[in-house]
Amino acid sequence: MTREIDRRTRNPEKTRAHILDMAFGEIYLHGFQGVSIDRIVRKTEVTKGAFFHHFASKKELGYALVDEVLREMILDRWIRPLAAYRNPLQGILKRFKVLSEEMSDQNLARGCPLNNLAQEMSAVDSVFREKIRAVMTMWIDETERYLQKAKEGRYLKPEADTRQLAVFIVMLEEGAFGLVKSMGDRRIFESLYASLRSHLQALTV
Amino acid sequence: MTREIDRRTRNPEKTRAHILDMAFGEIYLHGFQGVSIDRIVRKTEVTKGAFFHHFASKKELGYALVDEVLREMILDRWIRPLAAYRNPLQGILKRFKVLSEEMSDQNLARGCPLNNLAQEMSAVDSVFREKIRAVMTMWIDETERYLQKAKEGRYLKPEADTRQLAVFIVMLEEGAFGLVKSMGDRRIFESLYASLRSHLQALTV
Repeated sequence: MTREIDRRTRNPEKTRAHILDMAFGEIYLHGFQGVSIDRIVRKTEVTKGAFFHHFASKKELGYALVDEVLREMILDRWIRPLAAYRNPLQGILKRFKVLSEEMSDQNLARGCPLNNLAQEMSAVDSVFREKIRAVMTMWIDETERYLQKAKEGRYLKPEADTRQLAVFIVMLEEGAFGLVKSMGDRRIFESLYASLRSHLQALTV
Repeated sequence: MTREIDRRTRNPEKTRAHILDMAFGEIYLHGFQGVSIDRIVRKTEVTKGAFFHHFASKKELGYALVDEVLREMILDRWIRPLAAYRNPLQGILKRFKVLSEEMSDQNLARGCPLNNLAQEMSAVDSVFREKIRAVMTMWIDETERYLQKAKEGRYLKPEADTRQLAVFIVMLEEGAFGLVKSMGDRRIFESLYASLRSHLQALTV
């Protein structure tokens, strides 16, 4: 019995998470279509058999990546931290600042993993399209929920359209990382932060 | 002498443009990494020899696509039409409306060809990165030039930061098509158009 099979037998969930984790890194580096199962298998150091035990195909692995890894990443980065702010608008500005400042130059050049996959695969595969749409909708819904809170707390003007503003904020959060990736210049973040701040200020009580 | 060789001999520039045109369509459909030279050659109905006469590799073709086809596409769609407006801010709003309305559902699902290539290839290949950066910089520069005109014409407040606003507008123009692609919902455009309009109104004299 090899060490690998031993590990898989003992803890299949851990092996699955390990494969997803390694695949995330490889796909982030080379794009979904730029990565082969062989390459992922080499990285994970599990056998090809173990890989196919968990994922029927590279696409199945990609779908799990959206449903599990990318969904959680968006919640952890953009949504859950907002609960700590009395004024959610301040939380939204702060998250944009923190996330743009703490990202390494390398990862800025790679962009947002969800956006990369969305732009690469949404038009190519309808299951990817549905799964990516579900994560984006969740992102907008959750942002709107905090904007509603901002309205209830009288931080946001009562006439502000929270759905329209939520769509705008998520577009800017994704669009900023996309443009910084295209431009290779992180000062773009400072410029867009100032635009976001003035946009929110115009809607603030 | 086959018809193909005949055509190439008579008009190499036309053959080159024809290859770029077919390659544009295939890459727009399947992504740069999802398309092979063989597939492009089949579409163009030129020989592989004719292909390599014009482009040393698939990458060389991709670079020419950015330098020539995508650069012209941005100028034609977003920049050149602005010359017809006395108030460039109205021109910017109108272009956003027209381009989002006239795009077919199919192309909306495919997104912006420049953004697709930028998100797919900027991190993977440094020459793509430089060429895409050059087109994006041109887009921002040209937008800023029209914002300066708007300021000179007293449509824009004198204290408005034209560079910041140009970065914001290009981010929104790209980000809107990216989000509509991810969401598969063109009503996102209407929502973002309203956000852009209110953003510009706050900076209008």
